[in-house]
Amino acid sequence: MESAIDTHLQCPRTLSRRVPDDYQPPFPMWVARADSSLQQVAMVYLGVQYREESQRPAALAALRHIVGTFDGTDGPVQHDLTDHVDNSGYHNLMVVGYWNAPAAYCRWLRSDAVKGWWESDERLTEGLGYFREILTPRVDQFETLYAFKDDLPGVGAVMGKISDDISEHAYWGSMRDRIPLSQTDWMQAGGDLTVVSGDPAKGGRVVVRGHDNIALIRSGQDWREAEEAERSLYLDELLPPLEEGMDFLRDNGEAVGCYSNRFARSIDLDGNELDESYNIGHWRSLGHLERWAESHPTHLRIFVSFFRVVTGLEKLRLYHEVSVSDGQDQLFEYLNCHPATGMMRDARVLVG
Amino acid sequence: MESAIDTHLQCPRTLSRRVPDDYQPPFPMWVARADSSLQQVAMVYLGVQYREESQRPAALAALRHIVGTFDGTDGPVQHDLTDHVDNSGYHNLMVVGYWNAPAAYCRWLRSDAVKGWWESDERLTEGLGYFREILTPRVDQFETLYAFKDDLPGVGAVMGKISDDISEHAYWGSMRDRIPLSQTDWMQAGGDLTVVSGDPAKGGRVVVRGHDNIALIRSGQDWREAEEAERSLYLDELLPPLEEGMDFLRDNGEAVGCYSNRFARSIDLDGNELDESYNIGHWRSLGHLERWAESHPTHLRIFVSFFRVVTGLEKLRLYHEVSVSDGQDQLFEYLNCHPATGMMRDARVLVG
Repeated sequence: MESAIDTHLQCPRTLSRRVPDDYQPPFPMWVARADSSLQQVAMVYLGVQYREESQRPAALAALRHIVGTFDGTDGPVQHDLTDHVDNSGYHNLMVVGYWNAPAAYCRWLRSDAVKGWWESDERLTEGLGYFREILTPRVDQFETLYAFKDDLPGVGAVMGKISDDISEHAYWGSMRDRIPLSQTDWMQAGGDLTVVSGDPAKGGRVVVRGHDNIALIRSGQDWREAEEAERSLYLDELLPPLEEGMDFLRDNGEAVGCYSNRFARSIDLDGNELDESYNIGHWRSLGHLERWAESHPTHLRIFVSFFRVVTGLEKLRLYHEVSVSDGQDQLFEYLNCHPATGMMRDARVLVG
Repeated sequence: MESAIDTHLQCPRTLSRRVPDDYQPPFPMWVARADSSLQQVAMVYLGVQYREESQRPAALAALRHIVGTFDGTDGPVQHDLTDHVDNSGYHNLMVVGYWNAPAAYCRWLRSDAVKGWWESDERLTEGLGYFREILTPRVDQFETLYAFKDDLPGVGAVMGKISDDISEHAYWGSMRDRIPLSQTDWMQAGGDLTVVSGDPAKGGRVVVRGHDNIALIRSGQDWREAEEAERSLYLDELLPPLEEGMDFLRDNGEAVGCYSNRFARSIDLDGNELDESYNIGHWRSLGHLERWAESHPTHLRIFVSFFRVVTGLEKLRLYHEVSVSDGQDQLFEYLNCHPATGMMRDARVLVG
């Protein structure tokens, strides 16, 4: 048993953990570990949005183009692809890339293949929407949690190692307690989402400024290797309350502090669905995420189901990763997307 | 908005609250306030146990005798009566008395009418069981929570006043955060329940020694004044998961750290049922109570139902009080009770 907070990230606390040192969780879970040289990661969500099914081939081609920019030495260590229908009935293809070296990420972002392509006027006339939602949290600003130990997805893949059983899980507040920064910081929201360039209602290019401590949760399910009984467990028991909760957040998020919620299905480069999915939720703060998760009936049902089955899981892989980030380490850019896309929906438009 | 911890009980923290100072609960609730002269209270549960319905008149007479000892200047400030069937199918009549002056409580306990009656050999031959379970927490060792503001039941009645809206509620961990001692103390269990006199298997007189930080929760429902719609809300929606959860704890408590759980119906001196009830649960520690409450499906259903209806409550009164206490401030005594009564069930019998 060890702390979810890696030894080199532990510091004298000004805020206490929610549970005492001798707390014993009722079942084992694990977190990703990185070499102590890791300082910061980049989580780069790149989307292609379209309305009509007839646009799908072009959208997939655009997605493949974007993934092509990942080739080469400055590309991400890890990436994966998804598809989802959003709060306004639009289709969205996304690729998320994870970097463990901010310098390489910056070189990639500034490369002609990326910068030139994004800034080109051609993007405005293709009939597709594009977005990039990028967070670069420091290593003390995120946590992970896995019910398995091998072949970690998401940010775990760029961290590279797995912990021993960790102490901080299976209680409300453990998510916060796993984030190293929680030792000294409440991680409260600072400021509001603000449109700083463009006009969401008009389409075109829009830039939204984030704010300190926006929380991003990626919560994943992978039933690729599951046998019949576990497939049924996931699809028949876990998935229905999960879908209900994720639909609630997609459609009613603003009232509870959820800026954006996308329950996305993994796909391959040709757009074929894989037996894998994850939810991506952006929240005003970790506190808002906590309040919803701890009190909403759908999430409590998810939680109860998970508790009931977790000790028997074999091939069904459940995990999450949660980060907060400084406002200056966030980038939210939209190009011909509908006005309820991503951070645009809840962003204040400054009256010039 | 004010803290649940009264100003004169606030102290420099070594342990932080679970939520930041600017936390805003989604609906109002209130706590009892006492004059700052209040140092300690006595919560005195006195029971009469019987097996056969034919013994009920004698048991009620015994209950009335006990209540009669409350007359006079050293009696409790507040008391109420209940009836319940326990984990072994026995009937139990209980009266709980609350004192706000430990000296008066001690004089009552040592009075001939109480001490003499309890110690008399006649008690052993009446065919009834008797128990006394007494806790005398200091004022920094308990908290209250009410969804109403007048005519407080239980310990609130001896405290006498009600707060303004309080901050620490509607999140997991708020119970702990309302107890003043939580500012500096984890309130962890110290030691084990131990039979220090007598043999539960043989009946007769048994004394169980408690230990530091046993947690006692009284969680109450009062639908005496409720109109039809609220009666139905309580009886049809809130009560079923509540009964399921309380039955679980009555029958399976040992595995989760619940020493004893009694869901008791309020009665009058003649044993007639009133439209009022409360659960009395003794727990190994506040942490054990938290873990169960936050993860067990039945309690999460209770919690979700409560959240859904709380803002519309008019005459349905829901509340709780939770204390911890030092081992030396606990008294658990049994007389001809079955061996699974109260603290006896989980108490270690020392092999002499």
